[in-house]
Amino acid sequence: MINELFAFYKPIIENRIDELLPETNAPYNEVVRASRYSLKLGGKRIRPILMMEFCRLFGGDYKSALDFAVALEMIHTYSLIHDDLPCMDNDDFRRGKPSCHKAFSEDMALLAGDALLTEAFAVAANANTDADIKVKAVATLSQMAGFSGMLGGQVIDLSFVKNPPDLDSLCDMYARKTGCLLRAAAIIGATVGGATEIEVNKADIFAQKVGLAFQIIDDILDVTADPELLGKPVGSDDKNQKTTFVSILGLEGARAEAKRLTDDALKLLNGFEGNTENMKALTEYLLQRNF
Amino acid sequence: MINELFAFYKPIIENRIDELLPETNAPYNEVVRASRYSLKLGGKRIRPILMMEFCRLFGGDYKSALDFAVALEMIHTYSLIHDDLPCMDNDDFRRGKPSCHKAFSEDMALLAGDALLTEAFAVAANANTDADIKVKAVATLSQMAGFSGMLGGQVIDLSFVKNPPDLDSLCDMYARKTGCLLRAAAIIGATVGGATEIEVNKADIFAQKVGLAFQIIDDILDVTADPELLGKPVGSDDKNQKTTFVSILGLEGARAEAKRLTDDALKLLNGFEGNTENMKALTEYLLQRNF
Repeated sequence: MINELFAFYKPIIENRIDELLPETNAPYNEVVRASRYSLKLGGKRIRPILMMEFCRLFGGDYKSALDFAVALEMIHTYSLIHDDLPCMDNDDFRRGKPSCHKAFSEDMALLAGDALLTEAFAVAANANTDADIKVKAVATLSQMAGFSGMLGGQVIDLSFVKNPPDLDSLCDMYARKTGCLLRAAAIIGATVGGATEIEVNKADIFAQKVGLAFQIIDDILDVTADPELLGKPVGSDDKNQKTTFVSILGLEGARAEAKRLTDDALKLLNGFEGNTENMKALTEYLLQRNF
Repeated sequence: MINELFAFYKPIIENRIDELLPETNAPYNEVVRASRYSLKLGGKRIRPILMMEFCRLFGGDYKSALDFAVALEMIHTYSLIHDDLPCMDNDDFRRGKPSCHKAFSEDMALLAGDALLTEAFAVAANANTDADIKVKAVATLSQMAGFSGMLGGQVIDLSFVKNPPDLDSLCDMYARKTGCLLRAAAIIGATVGGATEIEVNKADIFAQKVGLAFQIIDDILDVTADPELLGKPVGSDDKNQKTTFVSILGLEGARAEAKRLTDDALKLLNGFEGNTENMKALTEYLLQRNF
């Protein structure tokens, strides 16, 4: 089920990325190459697939959400490129391959991130749909990526180095840093699909539950995963004395919390009228992943 | 004339910035402070004023363009913050004061730039006007700031370190790096003001002329200016063996080219029906500046 879902959506997403961001003969092509390098580094496209599935669930054509889905993936990728920079996490590897500033250079990685963030809004504004929908998409993407969203979460995370968080603060940080882009996927997908305001709100809450579960699992995997399968080193949270769900609740406590949130999310799916089989498979995949 | 123009618009812009980006009690306020620090570092607000004047020139209320003007200034400021970073120009000072990464930290400056770029699109998408206008504004801002615009110009500029440009390549780089945000001001201002497509196009060409003149004057000032008045060190182009209009055309040749472009721009203004006195004053100010 889940493999078929990935097999269906992935080529559609990859092709649209290639159409929207092709290499060029222009003298600035180096930054296109750097952007494409990171954008094509083998991401699982969870956010775009979630968006298109929500669109479909509420009766829309998934293709209507495709450009917004690519825009969201561009924003996700920009955040990874900038997070890996020496002045941030200083990670030389991403998904088992050299991170952007290692494959290119630090200045080019900075600019590639900036360019992908900028281009995301160009792609959303130029999507082939109603202006009202496009404004809603741009407003949602910028809110969920910005000060009070993903970026704010990043800033709060940095503040934890000096002031280790309690569980509430940790949840708030995760909700922003990881949850907000999943929320953008749900809100935009449902909106494009024609969902009512109440349905959009339910999709949003679903994404919040999944987002927190997703991040708790990241904390768990940092303790338990095979680094080969994960594609990055493990044990870094413990080494860096980071407060995580595992350090606060223990491994089993963290697992129980992730399970509880995922069960909540699955229950929310049952409240939707359309066919939620794909969405359920995606949700369970996110809980059971070992990548 | 020009002082009255600045005196009229500046408080309007400053107040709107404070409304749109106030400090907050949220735990991510540090990045708001860093963003506001750079946004309020005493910029002359050339781009916002140009946009609102174009709006007014074509019969619109300048207030209809105010939020787009602030969005553009946010994009301009993000580009300055990231340009100053150690991996780029490594400038410790901006407008005579510590640059963002010196006043805060490198990671916070990176994130402040990212946040301002993101917030610019939130501000544009939430402006109090028609969805069609907002989509046009977002499309214009992202195009002019992105791969083929300002950011592409930055990338081309970096490539000149290895491959010094001829005059055509230098013009192309300046057109992108400096010209594109002025073009965004003209295009959005004219569009919001109700200009026809032909008028928008003329406003765009005007901005291209002014943008190139503006950059040539930057090259001239790097040779001739008083560093106290300029608020930054001079002579850096020569020290860095940078190819500039002055190094290719000589000081007088560069001055003549800036004069020619400004005369062209002033002629274009004469082709507009509205009152262009303010716009003429702004254009002449840009040519005669010694800051």
